[in-house]
Amino acid sequence: MWTLASLTALAISGASATVAGSQNVPRAASDARGPYIASTAPYENIFAGISNSEASDIEDFLERQNSSSLRDVQYWDYRPWLLPPNKTEATTYLAGNGPKPPRYARVMGYGDCFEREYMVGPLPIGNSTKATPLAYVNNGNPTVVYEGCEEENEDLMRRVAKRAVNRRSQTPAEARKMKTKRRRSIQRRDPTNPYDEEMEWNGDELPHDDKSPPVTILPDGARYEFDPDQNYVSWMGFSFYVATGPAGISLHDVHFRGERVVYELAMQEALAHYAGPDESQTYASYLDVTIDFMNFNLIPGYDCPSYATYTDAFCLFEFPKDYPMSRHYDWSSFHATKNIAFMVRSISTIGNYDYQTTYEFYYDGSIQVLVRASGYIQGSSNVNATNAWDYGFHIRKDLSGSMHDHVLNFKADLDILGTNNTLFKSEFVPHSQVYPWSGGEVVNTMKVERSFVTNEDQGKINWAPNAAAAYSVVNKDKPNCNGEFPGFRIYPSTGSTTHLTVQNSTVFGNLVNWATHHMYALRRKDSEPVSAHPRSSGWSDQAIAVDFNDFFDGESIEQEDIVLYFNLGMHHMPDTYDLPVTVFQGAQSGITLRPQNYKRSDSAISTRQQIHITGDEDGVANVETYGVEPLAGSYDLEDANPPWYPAPY
Amino acid sequence: MWTLASLTALAISGASATVAGSQNVPRAASDARGPYIASTAPYENIFAGISNSEASDIEDFLERQNSSSLRDVQYWDYRPWLLPPNKTEATTYLAGNGPKPPRYARVMGYGDCFEREYMVGPLPIGNSTKATPLAYVNNGNPTVVYEGCEEENEDLMRRVAKRAVNRRSQTPAEARKMKTKRRRSIQRRDPTNPYDEEMEWNGDELPHDDKSPPVTILPDGARYEFDPDQNYVSWMGFSFYVATGPAGISLHDVHFRGERVVYELAMQEALAHYAGPDESQTYASYLDVTIDFMNFNLIPGYDCPSYATYTDAFCLFEFPKDYPMSRHYDWSSFHATKNIAFMVRSISTIGNYDYQTTYEFYYDGSIQVLVRASGYIQGSSNVNATNAWDYGFHIRKDLSGSMHDHVLNFKADLDILGTNNTLFKSEFVPHSQVYPWSGGEVVNTMKVERSFVTNEDQGKINWAPNAAAAYSVVNKDKPNCNGEFPGFRIYPSTGSTTHLTVQNSTVFGNLVNWATHHMYALRRKDSEPVSAHPRSSGWSDQAIAVDFNDFFDGESIEQEDIVLYFNLGMHHMPDTYDLPVTVFQGAQSGITLRPQNYKRSDSAISTRQQIHITGDEDGVANVETYGVEPLAGSYDLEDANPPWYPAPY
Repeated sequence: MWTLASLTALAISGASATVAGSQNVPRAASDARGPYIASTAPYENIFAGISNSEASDIEDFLERQNSSSLRDVQYWDYRPWLLPPNKTEATTYLAGNGPKPPRYARVMGYGDCFEREYMVGPLPIGNSTKATPLAYVNNGNPTVVYEGCEEENEDLMRRVAKRAVNRRSQTPAEARKMKTKRRRSIQRRDPTNPYDEEMEWNGDELPHDDKSPPVTILPDGARYEFDPDQNYVSWMGFSFYVATGPAGISLHDVHFRGERVVYELAMQEALAHYAGPDESQTYASYLDVTIDFMNFNLIPGYDCPSYATYTDAFCLFEFPKDYPMSRHYDWSSFHATKNIAFMVRSISTIGNYDYQTTYEFYYDGSIQVLVRASGYIQGSSNVNATNAWDYGFHIRKDLSGSMHDHVLNFKADLDILGTNNTLFKSEFVPHSQVYPWSGGEVVNTMKVERSFVTNEDQGKINWAPNAAAAYSVVNKDKPNCNGEFPGFRIYPSTGSTTHLTVQNSTVFGNLVNWATHHMYALRRKDSEPVSAHPRSSGWSDQAIAVDFNDFFDGESIEQEDIVLYFNLGMHHMPDTYDLPVTVFQGAQSGITLRPQNYKRSDSAISTRQQIHITGDEDGVANVETYGVEPLAGSYDLEDANPPWYPAPY
Repeated sequence: MWTLASLTALAISGASATVAGSQNVPRAASDARGPYIASTAPYENIFAGISNSEASDIEDFLERQNSSSLRDVQYWDYRPWLLPPNKTEATTYLAGNGPKPPRYARVMGYGDCFEREYMVGPLPIGNSTKATPLAYVNNGNPTVVYEGCEEENEDLMRRVAKRAVNRRSQTPAEARKMKTKRRRSIQRRDPTNPYDEEMEWNGDELPHDDKSPPVTILPDGARYEFDPDQNYVSWMGFSFYVATGPAGISLHDVHFRGERVVYELAMQEALAHYAGPDESQTYASYLDVTIDFMNFNLIPGYDCPSYATYTDAFCLFEFPKDYPMSRHYDWSSFHATKNIAFMVRSISTIGNYDYQTTYEFYYDGSIQVLVRASGYIQGSSNVNATNAWDYGFHIRKDLSGSMHDHVLNFKADLDILGTNNTLFKSEFVPHSQVYPWSGGEVVNTMKVERSFVTNEDQGKINWAPNAAAAYSVVNKDKPNCNGEFPGFRIYPSTGSTTHLTVQNSTVFGNLVNWATHHMYALRRKDSEPVSAHPRSSGWSDQAIAVDFNDFFDGESIEQEDIVLYFNLGMHHMPDTYDLPVTVFQGAQSGITLRPQNYKRSDSAISTRQQIHITGDEDGVANVETYGVEPLAGSYDLEDANPPWYPAPY
């Protein structure tokens, strides 16, 4: 345990933790502490919330009032808040063209079976300050009368619902075969910039941007184990093999706390399907794995931290997330757990595009798969074509940003306590029912519907609207002590995880039957190792090497060795934001696997990287850090720079 | 410019950038560089991709073959890849119960109008190695015959599509008023742990977890400006005011590169709607803003980095993302841009739950709003109730994790080059058409449908299935030089951004009419400042203070001062993963606003935090960092520890 007293020196040094920022202010006149560059706002903050001293003044003011409109108020809610200035006056003031808008607070008053809202102002309290009923933000009526207030107890159970509630349902469209010849779809991608805009600093001077931003360092050495000969990695109870192949890096035999949870997690294919008014844009589509996903390259300090472990194909590193894994404050203690992720990352450059693939591991047992895309867009110079605007934004004089879909197919072969597993679905649905306790009246509420995906015929799945349905791979033969089935849930962790927009694509035909839905569940077979052939682009629908639809032959997938295939991706309609290049920040797609009823509790409580703060009445803080010592000593900042640079060739 | 020569010292020091990890290996026998802890894999990596030397041996081997089955192959694809071992043999080996499976490669051979796949093995090449046609992973047929190969050119344009393609459509359900009395929904939340599980390290020993994980430091001082008296902040071309109110922190008058882009970005209300078989669980639902979202508290070093600026209500900090903003490799150069985010964060503890609200700003002009939830779940001990399993998982002997929805409503008043704006929709739709160039045949492709939301009657919006529709606030009166309308797009950035499952909730009635859809577009009015009254919980449907539905009165929202309201949230069915507490990592929801056709190009090119690496034939790397100097000097690691600890009271 540390005490507050023993931390004084630490606190003082920490509060001025800067090396070069001499203009930094460790503590301001106000309540701010920590480093920042002091500035003066151009105008007063007219949106500031009601301060404690203003609230106190308002309380005093209201206690003194005796007007008729206030007389029936029996008590006040002394948590006033701001009545924001009207926008016209506010923006006039903020433009320097008008006076500061008057400041008002809103306060709730309560009386006998009613509540009434008041505006109090102008503030600060002065001779002109008044409290008047506030109607204009309350549908014209400042007062809410509690109808039935007197009969509260007897009426409480009387509720009527007039309409049945419809349940949400999914109607995944079935993909249909199209028998037609089609152009060989392997395309070359040109890596060079076809446009004027350069991938260079444009010379703008952003304030303080010449200073080093915060940087993540490794003060105590690596905390993961690695066998570079076998690409075998272990971190905090996870272990796995990394492999490379035509579709980039993949993970194999992933163990978590002693049990295999994933046998294989691997990209299969990555399509980029374009559309345009002319033939060239329509057919300029790509299967990027067949082109070559193995052009690996990494820039230390940019693609991965400077302190990462680098191999020819990927990097390994731990990274602190900006937010904790968990936290809680219960008035007598604070508790928080650090959120340190472990990442395996590679970059595959395919002509104009750079794909980043990252597998992220967390203390709580979750595994996130993330793909991001950067690089030059493929646009069209045919900006004057008929209907050009039906296929993309016009983003420069001579350039239309051709619309396209990215869909990246992954195989996820989970094994939960053995290979006999089932895909479990739990769906939140609206529910209306007369309950034994509801006095004969219908209650509109919700419930969860539990079901299993038991046959390949049900194995083509779209994420439910409103994320209502959750899916997990469970083992029905090994219920836990509560009778629930242990498993790992799989869910989209980014807003975009798309399947292909185009139906029965003339360009790709049956080559992309893995792209019609968000996820698929199948019986795993050695004879069906991949959803798409990584080298054969096929030629005609009569003879392609791997047709994913053929995997669906009506077999049982209940307590069998099942395999999931899921799609990441995005619809991309490039605009000027994509010049000179598409940015990772706006083009990312991810899926997370995480334990569900798998252990008796969350696995993150196994880490020592937690803090528990209690205090006594004298304000002495007791800080428990579970054996993790505070950092000490000095760090050579040169070690935070990239250790080497890749040589272009 | 730096040269490779001048970087030698840097590279050497960087490669051994560790302080305490004496067992770390700067460079391994293999190709790995950087720090890691050396280990030995328990078994060989039988999933490893075909190495370059193996590929070379396979090439030599195939060149030497002369068997009949190989004779018609005219050339080989010398990028062989692994034929993975069959899972049964693999798992037997990995369990230590069997021999290492034989290793095979897959290779494509090409002949006159055909391609054929071969398996080559066992590897390494030896006397028993053979190349045999590979059928079992290719639907039983190793050979793809290029039908119509000879007539390729004349047939190229002949494609037939037999079926019309149906367009996706949205059918948002209309919320209906329900006239019924309902219980006053203000509830207390108990902050204490009702369960056995403790928020403490559980004593597990995770390997190397006693060492410090990587930590983010501020080596060069703060790079943002702050006026703590006005809570006025500026960072890299963004400026804004922060305010606090009943719903936590909010942003006001957000400028980006000299123009106001957001007048107000603020949470309105946060509901937690539970369901259960008994009356208490059904009615134990909360409007957390009416309870109190202003119990702000922060733990330095955990909720925010140690170097953050702390005020009573929020913290400010820059944080390096683990991935770059953008990058590209074009064979003659590497380029990447750092991704430094600026964050404004607060924690609001409401009884058992801790909400984290973060506003994130990026170099590319994007603004992300993220809410995460942690803390103790509210479960039910009524595990033996009839149909208990319809409302949650049974997660401990005496505990059911009651299902609930979180829905958090935000107001986003964007102003794009003035207040006269329109909500623009661009939707990817399947499209089938006979094109002038398609020889009379139908081409199955896609296009984008552009439309505008012009009336409040169209203003209740659900995110489209498959993320097909994109929405942005644009100014139609000020098209850019390309004729496109400048604006900011708004899109979900997490997998979960939900509206309420329950329809016409008996518990909440009209109090939560803002929770029926994902997003709303309305005419902005001073008389409609919030979607939900922050203090009045209402009483009956006849008289609630603010009914969001009343805002919809059919007004035009075309080139008016429009305002959006969007919902974050999640469906939460707690399982053992939520014991002892729900973790932020699994409970997060976010929305991103980002420029769309707003500037001539992406704004991230304005930062100096980029790197451009070129090289000459002698392997000398020229590194351009646009005036940003490498880090130098020493850093006191004590400054990376939390500067102070909050005192519980």
